[in-house]
Amino acid sequence: MRLCKTINEMRSFIKAVRAEGKIVGLVPTMGYLHQGHMSLVREAKSRCDVVVVSIFVNPTQFGPNEDYHSYPRDLQKDAALVAEAGVDVIFAPEVAEMYPAGFSSYVEVTGVSECLCGASRPGHFRGVATVVSKLFHIVQPDLAFFGQKDFQQVLVIKRMVADLNMTVQIVEVPIVREADGLAMSSRNVYLSPEERQAALVLSRSLKLAQELVAQGERDIATLRDRVCQEINKETLANIDYVEIRSLPNLQTIDKLEGQALLALAVRFGKTRLIDNTILEA
Amino acid sequence: MRLCKTINEMRSFIKAVRAEGKIVGLVPTMGYLHQGHMSLVREAKSRCDVVVVSIFVNPTQFGPNEDYHSYPRDLQKDAALVAEAGVDVIFAPEVAEMYPAGFSSYVEVTGVSECLCGASRPGHFRGVATVVSKLFHIVQPDLAFFGQKDFQQVLVIKRMVADLNMTVQIVEVPIVREADGLAMSSRNVYLSPEERQAALVLSRSLKLAQELVAQGERDIATLRDRVCQEINKETLANIDYVEIRSLPNLQTIDKLEGQALLALAVRFGKTRLIDNTILEA
Repeated sequence: MRLCKTINEMRSFIKAVRAEGKIVGLVPTMGYLHQGHMSLVREAKSRCDVVVVSIFVNPTQFGPNEDYHSYPRDLQKDAALVAEAGVDVIFAPEVAEMYPAGFSSYVEVTGVSECLCGASRPGHFRGVATVVSKLFHIVQPDLAFFGQKDFQQVLVIKRMVADLNMTVQIVEVPIVREADGLAMSSRNVYLSPEERQAALVLSRSLKLAQELVAQGERDIATLRDRVCQEINKETLANIDYVEIRSLPNLQTIDKLEGQALLALAVRFGKTRLIDNTILEA
Repeated sequence: MRLCKTINEMRSFIKAVRAEGKIVGLVPTMGYLHQGHMSLVREAKSRCDVVVVSIFVNPTQFGPNEDYHSYPRDLQKDAALVAEAGVDVIFAPEVAEMYPAGFSSYVEVTGVSECLCGASRPGHFRGVATVVSKLFHIVQPDLAFFGQKDFQQVLVIKRMVADLNMTVQIVEVPIVREADGLAMSSRNVYLSPEERQAALVLSRSLKLAQELVAQGERDIATLRDRVCQEINKETLANIDYVEIRSLPNLQTIDKLEGQALLALAVRFGKTRLIDNTILEA
């Protein structure tokens, strides 16, 4: 497996494999890889000749009071994991390589990026769209793989790709959960044992919503209230948002018809976790 | 010569010529072509195997009170001109092809886009960067050709290409002027005979600045004042801006050292014309 630290190295590698007509897959990550990431890698391996995993903790998608500096990093462990999985290249640039002095261009997806995490984290999706656009231009993948854990992120990136006529195909991969239901996240490492236990309320509340829908509940306000009540039973949980919105445009709705996204963000101590599920009438 | 009206047609053509290893050049235009455009085409022909001229009056770069609807259009005449010049393809999409319902992604270049025409025309460069980004993704040119008449536009696009790691090489081509000095522009057609005569003050004022610099003048305020005085001698001229700024970042400066951009925008009746020259100490 190759480790590319510079854009030029990455480009040279891609140019060579492209010349051989190979299908290139990209799995963009911020590293500290878990089984959620590895399911993206496995999907990429099954569909592409060459798999690139980018590992870059992207400063432009963190707010000033967020966890950019403390975000967990372990390139050595990540490299061992993806090498084992048969990945061809890690692209792990330094911040100054991606954002040299004078950097001042951004990709902004309006609409779908403005609610949910976009409302809680101003500028977050501008940072995401910008760095993903850069990665697409550097790696020129045929396919790129994203996890549904960040469901809104997938919608933002699909919107960007369609609107700006990028040729990459976006592949969505389902959330991977721990045995007890907690959605895998690099940020789970922040949780104290008590918070880790309390965080199970997230998947439990999503499951409750699914059950209510199965029993015929269609009123969005009722569904949302029941999810909030469930989460608030957990004293360590502080709700950032709980929302049910239309797909793919994330409009507010009153009644569940067809599919909708139930998405939530909840703090446990200093740790903000997100989770989601698709509700279907 | 081929005429592509859809993105899919354009992509198919490009895929075929790419497979043959040909060098592709793009000349993005808003049509109503004049000799300034044709100098871009000639430069592209001399450096590329395949030349694409895009003709698209881009609504997102016009303000609500600007001349989008009245902007001159003549696809038939344009097609004859570029066919004669040996262009391989015209890409002339409809607005709905480029901006279908739900379109909501934009490329924003901060900094260099905020002064001069960016200050006079809010949103203009966001529209330019967005449509050029789209054209680059659709046509995937090796080289793209832009005229220095829109000097700030070239700076914005070079910034975007560098920041977002696009692989296209930007080629700048000098301003082409009428025999009497007026910079060629599709908007010159708006001018009445009196305004057309009055508009000569633009190139005359730029020439005056060059002469003052040649005589040793280095004070930016003095140079700017002299240019404004010259323009104001013309009663039909209404100055939008006259500015001298550093290159390539368009910072304000007090003294001329090395190169700087003297750029101006002036209205003659309803017609807003721009012109510029590089001053060099």
